[in-house]
Amino acid sequence: MTKNSRAIPVAELVQQARAGQPRAVARLISLVEDRSPSLREVSAALAPLTGRAHIVGITGSPGVGKSTSTSALVAALRAQGRRVGVLAVDPTSPFSGGALLGDRVRMQDHALDDGVFIRSMASRGHLGGLSATAPQALRVLDAAGCDVVLVETVGVGQSEVEIAGLADTTLVLLAPGMGDGIQAAKAGILEIGDVFVVNKADRDGAQSTRRELRSVIGMTDRPDGAWKPPILLTTATSGAGVDEVVEAIEEHRRHLDESGELTRRRLARVRREIEALALTEVRSRFAHLSGDARLDTLAAEVLDGRTDPFAAADTLVETL
Amino acid sequence: MTKNSRAIPVAELVQQARAGQPRAVARLISLVEDRSPSLREVSAALAPLTGRAHIVGITGSPGVGKSTSTSALVAALRAQGRRVGVLAVDPTSPFSGGALLGDRVRMQDHALDDGVFIRSMASRGHLGGLSATAPQALRVLDAAGCDVVLVETVGVGQSEVEIAGLADTTLVLLAPGMGDGIQAAKAGILEIGDVFVVNKADRDGAQSTRRELRSVIGMTDRPDGAWKPPILLTTATSGAGVDEVVEAIEEHRRHLDESGELTRRRLARVRREIEALALTEVRSRFAHLSGDARLDTLAAEVLDGRTDPFAAADTLVETL
Repeated sequence: MTKNSRAIPVAELVQQARAGQPRAVARLISLVEDRSPSLREVSAALAPLTGRAHIVGITGSPGVGKSTSTSALVAALRAQGRRVGVLAVDPTSPFSGGALLGDRVRMQDHALDDGVFIRSMASRGHLGGLSATAPQALRVLDAAGCDVVLVETVGVGQSEVEIAGLADTTLVLLAPGMGDGIQAAKAGILEIGDVFVVNKADRDGAQSTRRELRSVIGMTDRPDGAWKPPILLTTATSGAGVDEVVEAIEEHRRHLDESGELTRRRLARVRREIEALALTEVRSRFAHLSGDARLDTLAAEVLDGRTDPFAAADTLVETL
Repeated sequence: MTKNSRAIPVAELVQQARAGQPRAVARLISLVEDRSPSLREVSAALAPLTGRAHIVGITGSPGVGKSTSTSALVAALRAQGRRVGVLAVDPTSPFSGGALLGDRVRMQDHALDDGVFIRSMASRGHLGGLSATAPQALRVLDAAGCDVVLVETVGVGQSEVEIAGLADTTLVLLAPGMGDGIQAAKAGILEIGDVFVVNKADRDGAQSTRRELRSVIGMTDRPDGAWKPPILLTTATSGAGVDEVVEAIEEHRRHLDESGELTRRRLARVRREIEALALTEVRSRFAHLSGDARLDTLAAEVLDGRTDPFAAADTLVETL
């Protein structure tokens, strides 16, 4: 209520977020997520503060232990004194906000740690979906001083590939059995993985899943000096192998820095982001025109045969 | 080859199409479908000739006999001396063209009838998909003098609802058993149906499917004077009941005319079409800018923190 009735002290919020106040971080994410009127002001205030955080996407089929692995990674990164952000994206849920999701109980281990920001985000029902809102939330976590931000999909779906598009480093999780090798190949996640993790390594079949994966990955032609995605084994529930994953993530980051690939990936990402925002803006201008007489007039002219749809569309584009 | 190397005689093609030459019709559809450079010229030439044809969408789950029903409807309409167009849309196929699809053998009954134009169209791989190309093909068939154009989806999918968006009258086909009643309700096709047809009426369960459907449809609140979708029984293979379907389609057309609903539907359709074309145009202009230094410069500025993505997007929209 007061949220809309008085000016939001954006500069103050940004300052507080930088100082590590979780409420300020949460508030800023809400502002970008809800496309608040101060969204542009927030975006402008964050701009000079972004670009430091290493964005790590975590993806994998349901049941591989994504949420447990994320929690274990948070613990390992915290043990190194890193500030960590977690963005849990649920593409199927219309609910969003600061509250932890029901099945993410393990993340509560970190709920009281002020070096960790946890945020869940729904993508359904948001204008432009995941691709429009998640980058903004990542900017907030980045500007708030997170060293590493883990982006995790809750649930299934095509958003896996979208997640990879948001991340500097993409972790692909698998589990023994489950026919994951083939599933992964089908979903195209073998191409997006920078680090592969076979979780639940205490179960039968972990080694054979790793072997299977290695042979599939090995078939890919890579240029000299290209990154070779490692395949690691973990048992996220006990924490076994998790430090090695953190190490592999850091190694990939170094590779990205040294090869110039980080800048290339981020440039491509920002380009997509700008294009998506521009299209969203255009679409909303058209929607405004729908309420307008202009589009009605054009439609009536097409219906009468006085003009054709392409000429009408050109006229519409010109009105922008 | 010569197609691109010399100017296409658009006016001549339109004239030939009006005169009922199937090659000219096919050529014009190819021009709009392939987004040929003369697309705008074609569209402008067609504009004053469109608006006469009654567009009838035919939809239903696989196995209900869509293609047989379409063929039977063509025969019934031809018996009345109507000129008929058929647009068979396959949303999953990348292949398009004048050739008949393999499983559409029955349509070959009409292949030599010069009062029937049959065209199959793929939507996959086309810029903007079905919603962008199908309306243009329908305009060609309309301008060519078809009294009725049947639009049929080959295969499954969400395009069912899209088809309804293209049509003046939507026919929903069901078959006994198959759990179609529930499937239909789930797919939302009950809302889009203007005429329901339970095909394969010679099989057990046709009457009960009709009853089930009637009770589900009966639950919908309708304002006074609103159209009450009839539920008809057919056996498309023998032609039984097909004349009644043609009659129901005509009755619906009269209802649309008298209630003013035809103009409302067509205006809404043309508006969507104009908006879709305008967005496609904007997207292609952005794509051009991608090759341009402008978007790269903007992305680099965002990456450096000199500007933010929203400000960059605004700049991009301004460049249009």
